[in-house]
Amino acid sequence: MSLKAEEPSVRKLGILAGTGRLPEEVAEARRAEGKPVFIVDLEGAAAQWASSFPNERVSLGQVGRVLALLEREGCDAVTMAGGLTRPSLTKVRFDRQGLALLPRVARLFGRGDDGLLSGVADLFEEHGFPVIGAEAFLPRSVAGSGVLAGTLCEEDGIATGRAILDALGPFDIGQAVVVAGGRCLAVEAAEGTAAMLDRVAALRAGDERGGVLVKMPKRGQDFRVDRPAIGPDTIRAAAKAGLSGIAVEAGGVFVLDAPRTVDLADQSGLFLFGFEP
Amino acid sequence: MSLKAEEPSVRKLGILAGTGRLPEEVAEARRAEGKPVFIVDLEGAAAQWASSFPNERVSLGQVGRVLALLEREGCDAVTMAGGLTRPSLTKVRFDRQGLALLPRVARLFGRGDDGLLSGVADLFEEHGFPVIGAEAFLPRSVAGSGVLAGTLCEEDGIATGRAILDALGPFDIGQAVVVAGGRCLAVEAAEGTAAMLDRVAALRAGDERGGVLVKMPKRGQDFRVDRPAIGPDTIRAAAKAGLSGIAVEAGGVFVLDAPRTVDLADQSGLFLFGFEP
Repeated sequence: MSLKAEEPSVRKLGILAGTGRLPEEVAEARRAEGKPVFIVDLEGAAAQWASSFPNERVSLGQVGRVLALLEREGCDAVTMAGGLTRPSLTKVRFDRQGLALLPRVARLFGRGDDGLLSGVADLFEEHGFPVIGAEAFLPRSVAGSGVLAGTLCEEDGIATGRAILDALGPFDIGQAVVVAGGRCLAVEAAEGTAAMLDRVAALRAGDERGGVLVKMPKRGQDFRVDRPAIGPDTIRAAAKAGLSGIAVEAGGVFVLDAPRTVDLADQSGLFLFGFEP
Repeated sequence: MSLKAEEPSVRKLGILAGTGRLPEEVAEARRAEGKPVFIVDLEGAAAQWASSFPNERVSLGQVGRVLALLEREGCDAVTMAGGLTRPSLTKVRFDRQGLALLPRVARLFGRGDDGLLSGVADLFEEHGFPVIGAEAFLPRSVAGSGVLAGTLCEEDGIATGRAILDALGPFDIGQAVVVAGGRCLAVEAAEGTAAMLDRVAALRAGDERGGVLVKMPKRGQDFRVDRPAIGPDTIRAAAKAGLSGIAVEAGGVFVLDAPRTVDLADQSGLFLFGFEP
């Protein structure tokens, strides 16, 4: 395992919350330890659950407001968790501090997703808020190594998938591919893993089976801001696509709602495998 | 230009015809030169136009029948042109000669698309029918170099797209990517270029613009059996996805219905650029 997640000594954590279960899991884990959090609900992505914590909803261009909120709440660190639809730069309404940073932000928009998010993390750090990857607060949610569910097969497909993702490493593209019967059926880019698996299901029209989803971090991925994840939805989508299983990099990929994800894989006859980086 | 298409001295050409305009263009080009062709209509893919030529419809497993037809018709060479949905091996109904080749064909099914088609081409050649790439009969349909339509821009995106496709070269995956604003939005695998462009259009929801489709042959591509192509449909789909243009490898990519494709690019405000390999 490459994981170096020591419990950081954060007093009050600001959670910049996108969509999905991850930010909620972080918030609940902190609460279970009796530690305070403050939820910055990005564009309402966390609206469904944020109300059970101190929270404010912000829009993406309100850089000044977010920094002021974190200050006011006495947060001493920040984590960025969950999904976010990349906005078009022209659609973001910036507040005054956001506008002052516009030239810099515009440059960040010229980068890939990882580059954009890394740049945003740098910005928070310069304003005194260290950005800590979510796995630091959820160490047991990161995939371990070995067979985590089902019966491992598709070893050749896993090797091919890893080689493809390695080759794509320098380009800040996707983090996942589907390989079946020696063929690469799909490569993930901006559409995300769920849409890629739906595409495979449609391509196969239900009659072909087998194959594996391989998912791992990009080379040089900034774990402060992003770490690939799988969860119950991934298992369902992989089953629908007729795959035999899912292979992820041990220590590199989140398994959201881990007990349920593993159960669901077992029930669906899918293997779940953590390979050593 | 890397094109080495000399007019081969074929007397009667057998055209194994998949979907799309390409096989029809080959047949018409041969007819215009007063030379006979015989259309092997694969699963009815050429049903709309094959009737204006001597033809027979076959299903994919009828290997013996196809060889007998080519023999009976006195074909001295074969070209494989057009698209084909990769069948599931279990769905193909083989004739006696097909069944005799089943172990070999089963092995071919373990390869990528190119590997499968190359193996089929080898099979025809062993039976005395040289397999000739369609561009030999349509030399003017292969993209030339330089600006072919519109005004070139997105040079950085073209360079990024080429680098990504180069990196994917060893894996027999797709032949196309979309790059916009420094980001790779989509990588083509089994779904094909049209589906990839539709995905980009859906991702962008109509408001974002710019970017380029880059398309080139895979490294080591077997030009006997496949050569990437663009045509009027590609221009329409690229325009719908908000792209600024299309860059293809000069000498490596077919431009189907070339005058119409170039006109349509000009009308749609898209550039069309052939880069030197």
